[in-house]
Amino acid sequence: MSMSMRNPSPIVIEQVTPAVDGGRYPIKREVGDNIVVRAVVYRDGHSVIKVFLKFREKFGGKMWSETPMRQINPGLCLWEGTFKPEKNALYVFTVEAYTDLFATWIQDAKKKSDANEDVRSDLIEGEALLRQIAAKASKRSEKNFYQDLLGRLAACGSDHEKVELLANHEVGELAADVTMRDPPLEVYVDRVRARFAAWYEFFPRSQGTEPGKSATFDDCIRRLPDIKAMGFDVIYLTPIHPIGRTARKGSNNSLECGPEEPGCPYAIGNETGGHYGIEPGLGTVDDFDRFVKACREMDFDVALDFAINCSPDHPYVKEHPEWFFKRPDGTIKYAENPPKKYEDIYPLNFSAPEGQWKSLWQEMKNILMFWVSHGVNTFRVDNPHTKPVAFWEWLISEIQREHPEVIFLSEAFTKPPMMKMLAKVGFTQSYTYFTWRNFKVELTEYLRELTENDVKEYMRWNFFANTPDILPRILQEGGRPAFMSRYALAATLSSVFGIYSGYELCENAAVPGKEEYLNSEKYQYKIWDWDRPGNIKEFISRINAIRHENPALQHSKNLKFFRSDNANIIFYGKASEDWKNIILTAVNLDPFNRQEGEIFIPTEAYGIGYGESYELHELISGNRFSMQGNHFYIKIELDQPAWMMRIERWGDRNFGTFLR
Amino acid sequence: MSMSMRNPSPIVIEQVTPAVDGGRYPIKREVGDNIVVRAVVYRDGHSVIKVFLKFREKFGGKMWSETPMRQINPGLCLWEGTFKPEKNALYVFTVEAYTDLFATWIQDAKKKSDANEDVRSDLIEGEALLRQIAAKASKRSEKNFYQDLLGRLAACGSDHEKVELLANHEVGELAADVTMRDPPLEVYVDRVRARFAAWYEFFPRSQGTEPGKSATFDDCIRRLPDIKAMGFDVIYLTPIHPIGRTARKGSNNSLECGPEEPGCPYAIGNETGGHYGIEPGLGTVDDFDRFVKACREMDFDVALDFAINCSPDHPYVKEHPEWFFKRPDGTIKYAENPPKKYEDIYPLNFSAPEGQWKSLWQEMKNILMFWVSHGVNTFRVDNPHTKPVAFWEWLISEIQREHPEVIFLSEAFTKPPMMKMLAKVGFTQSYTYFTWRNFKVELTEYLRELTENDVKEYMRWNFFANTPDILPRILQEGGRPAFMSRYALAATLSSVFGIYSGYELCENAAVPGKEEYLNSEKYQYKIWDWDRPGNIKEFISRINAIRHENPALQHSKNLKFFRSDNANIIFYGKASEDWKNIILTAVNLDPFNRQEGEIFIPTEAYGIGYGESYELHELISGNRFSMQGNHFYIKIELDQPAWMMRIERWGDRNFGTFLR
Repeated sequence: MSMSMRNPSPIVIEQVTPAVDGGRYPIKREVGDNIVVRAVVYRDGHSVIKVFLKFREKFGGKMWSETPMRQINPGLCLWEGTFKPEKNALYVFTVEAYTDLFATWIQDAKKKSDANEDVRSDLIEGEALLRQIAAKASKRSEKNFYQDLLGRLAACGSDHEKVELLANHEVGELAADVTMRDPPLEVYVDRVRARFAAWYEFFPRSQGTEPGKSATFDDCIRRLPDIKAMGFDVIYLTPIHPIGRTARKGSNNSLECGPEEPGCPYAIGNETGGHYGIEPGLGTVDDFDRFVKACREMDFDVALDFAINCSPDHPYVKEHPEWFFKRPDGTIKYAENPPKKYEDIYPLNFSAPEGQWKSLWQEMKNILMFWVSHGVNTFRVDNPHTKPVAFWEWLISEIQREHPEVIFLSEAFTKPPMMKMLAKVGFTQSYTYFTWRNFKVELTEYLRELTENDVKEYMRWNFFANTPDILPRILQEGGRPAFMSRYALAATLSSVFGIYSGYELCENAAVPGKEEYLNSEKYQYKIWDWDRPGNIKEFISRINAIRHENPALQHSKNLKFFRSDNANIIFYGKASEDWKNIILTAVNLDPFNRQEGEIFIPTEAYGIGYGESYELHELISGNRFSMQGNHFYIKIELDQPAWMMRIERWGDRNFGTFLR
Repeated sequence: MSMSMRNPSPIVIEQVTPAVDGGRYPIKREVGDNIVVRAVVYRDGHSVIKVFLKFREKFGGKMWSETPMRQINPGLCLWEGTFKPEKNALYVFTVEAYTDLFATWIQDAKKKSDANEDVRSDLIEGEALLRQIAAKASKRSEKNFYQDLLGRLAACGSDHEKVELLANHEVGELAADVTMRDPPLEVYVDRVRARFAAWYEFFPRSQGTEPGKSATFDDCIRRLPDIKAMGFDVIYLTPIHPIGRTARKGSNNSLECGPEEPGCPYAIGNETGGHYGIEPGLGTVDDFDRFVKACREMDFDVALDFAINCSPDHPYVKEHPEWFFKRPDGTIKYAENPPKKYEDIYPLNFSAPEGQWKSLWQEMKNILMFWVSHGVNTFRVDNPHTKPVAFWEWLISEIQREHPEVIFLSEAFTKPPMMKMLAKVGFTQSYTYFTWRNFKVELTEYLRELTENDVKEYMRWNFFANTPDILPRILQEGGRPAFMSRYALAATLSSVFGIYSGYELCENAAVPGKEEYLNSEKYQYKIWDWDRPGNIKEFISRINAIRHENPALQHSKNLKFFRSDNANIIFYGKASEDWKNIILTAVNLDPFNRQEGEIFIPTEAYGIGYGESYELHELISGNRFSMQGNHFYIKIELDQPAWMMRIERWGDRNFGTFLR
């Protein structure tokens, strides 16, 4: 007999969803989400099967919880169940099914009895099954129930009555062929802020008031109330570590650097320390701790930049030369992407020979654990696509196993398969191409790509409207209206988004012909007037407040696009899971002209009856429109290029209450 | 250091297609097919990677063959390669990739050299790589080549010339990070007849001339020339085994059975034998061997019915009572699907306790191996969906490992997931719902479901126009035109199809209100006049001949539907892989009326230039139409309800030669 002969479990469990690559990678959800699991389950013949959804935390030796699944499409053998993880942790879930012998017996006996056939032999069988179930009863009340039922069975006048008696009682199950999908699938359950947050990025050294001098963490603390007032949730700091001296870059990325120039914080490490250190101009680790504490008191998360670059002066260069790439003359290679050269940076060799990569990987973990111990719960990772994905899979799982609250944002602007793979192997959030998608068709197509296939199961997009490296053409050319419309797009298309400071001031001075900022903070100290004329802080504050007040905007996957006849007006909507909160957003994509045209309110999609009256409450301006039907002629002025309209029941100005 | 730390291979190989359920089940192809494999392959950073497709027979310790894959979409990191298996066997295939160190070096050095940068250090590195490659050269000519190249390198006047010298020579590869998708994927490569065949099913006992008496295998041999003349490829016999006596069914499925009545051949086994035996009325095993030999000489495959039913008189009942289901009184259960009863059949228990199922499974294998040893190379399996799918996966792989030529047809009319799963676990072909799809929309939708998603990778549909159990309403009502149109549909929509004998005579007498044949051969002896008036044998012969002459019709997956303005006219086409043979088929689905209307010749889809002249050669009638443009007004009469039009170059009456 061949070894490949399988135990003949007759039950098939397949197509369990949601799953990424057949279960190779976890899906992502957030605490309190309802996770809807579907599976195709069936067996040969006509026996009755029962199907259960099982779930538990992966680590810590937890027991399975289970909930029944119901058959939602008998023809396609489709079953559905839901569970709600309540903890920020890695969970496993799977589907279990078995044949219910007693239910099968009842099904067949009832058909025969109903057709007036002889069921004497069937009843002997049924009673035997019932006695097996009774024998397994443990509670006193159960024992009594079965004793009573068996007594009444014996007292029945006819076989037909006996079958009816058993068919009309909730008798326990007798399971056979118990079959479980193995291995289970995984879901990483993040904190809600992984899904819903507004990020504010700044260079700590630019938060002060003294020209030509680094700001300190105390200056940064003084900036917090202003940022909080705008409604941000995450403070993201560019690298805070000591900056290299060798080949230090001068202002505007110059190869010449004056003695007073601070260099680029992405060239990490000098004689005072490396990735564990703090650039002396900013302060000490104690100062940093005080900054983190201040952030926490204002309910800010603190995100650090994790840039695995070493300046030639980084301590590793002497302590661990084996981690670097060597040139034939024994010197260490600087970073290159020919013909570009980064003489102030040495890359690390993540595929260095056996033993060496292990110690390097471990060291990276140590760095992150150090900052986690100082209150950092979010890392924005610089260029992860230039390191092996296996490294990220290992590193992120190592950190999250001890600190499930830690969020990782992948800064990979590269080929789509690599961007997706980084999300699959564990990155909580991902940068996207949003920054370069400005027109209606390209925005719609890109968002559909993200929301309408399995990408949404593992990738959370974090829409940055600008970054220190990217001042997109639309902002350079479009000025204040563009800054407002792009902000509104980021904040309403995605529940997680961010800006790099200066955005609120509509800063748009660029190196001519490039996306680079002129006099970029990357290479010099800067002083800002955070209230300078023309700023859009009020607009930003209003949108962030609306996001906090409206659950519909706290999700990304609920996005739907709707019809607008003007090619410059994009129109879309989101509903909360309970359908009580519905926000429709219309944005003028043309920063140069007022745009107007007809938009079509998706009454049917959102459960508004034919002929029913309702109100559109535009939340930025406070304007209200009484509505019937779905035609709406909209005029969007440049001083408010985005409309955020809540659908409300007529007369109810506080909250929409349309239920599906 | 955690155990989960992976070796840091930087190369990702994913989304290798075609694959069924991520590689859990084999895809299916036929000998000589070009198998196009795609994969998404990439790595971190900018190194040059090389990708190969590897393949070999799974069994027999064969070495891998390999062929390079080429990058067909750099942005999506998509690679493609092709291999052509030449043997009827189970193959494995996979994708291997590595970093090419020398190609990476050349790429970077050339960029720097072209930008007039210093490449002295790079050249030292490049020369070292070249020496490593040279050291691995084994052939004399290779050694000489590298010696010469190194000499010329030393003689170069400038660093720039050195880089150019190396960039312009085909230097061997230096592979690092060799990464293979593991486990490999599988493809079961069948004989071509698994894809292209016309089946003819008959009851052997009805092939004679003496009323009230069983025909013999010699009578069957005498029938073969007539069936061959119609152009069939496979002779499929309903069960040939001894028929039970207990509860034997009489004519028209009567519970009363006269002493001379033969019973139903699906109730297998009596005192003369079981599944190894032959019903004495048909002859002996020697007679069967002679029949098989006659079939082989006429290039017929012989298909047997594998019906795992035992009559109460089957030898197993005494020899292996443990294989059956018992009633409480110790007697064996007959088959039931309440309220239906099959008192002449005992089902076997494939999930019987440990030890018992193993011997039962092994016995089923022994039966099949016995008939294979008698020249049977095809089994039509009765009701496989009432046995565990694990059993079929084991059984089919066991048989095919020794006899890869054996074809299994799944007769499962049940829920789609079970039908698909039976195909996944190994059935070569599958019955379908075709028999009940009569109208244009339902035919189109059903065929699209089969051809336009991954079902086509593992499921081959065998379209039966009728079966002994199914005389569909369209044939009962529609008479001769319906028999012709349904035949043409089966033969052109699917490259594998079949009829049950009597179809060619337009036999359509039904039990009133049912799909059952009146006086069915299942329960009685019958004598037929195989040339009776009104038969459609000429039509059948013509279509079968056209199928053999036109490669386009020898595939199923190449089906495309095209526009026809009349809802009763369905219009579709197929092209051969080399695009030299294109057949367009238009069928009148209304058996009661002539239909006419405009159809639109898909000139663009099949590479006919705008304004180009061409000819439509209708192959059944021989009529020709000279064409320009794509409008064609067609009138389909009831005496030829199907048109099979070959697209031919104007003036070339032998063969279409349009190339894409």
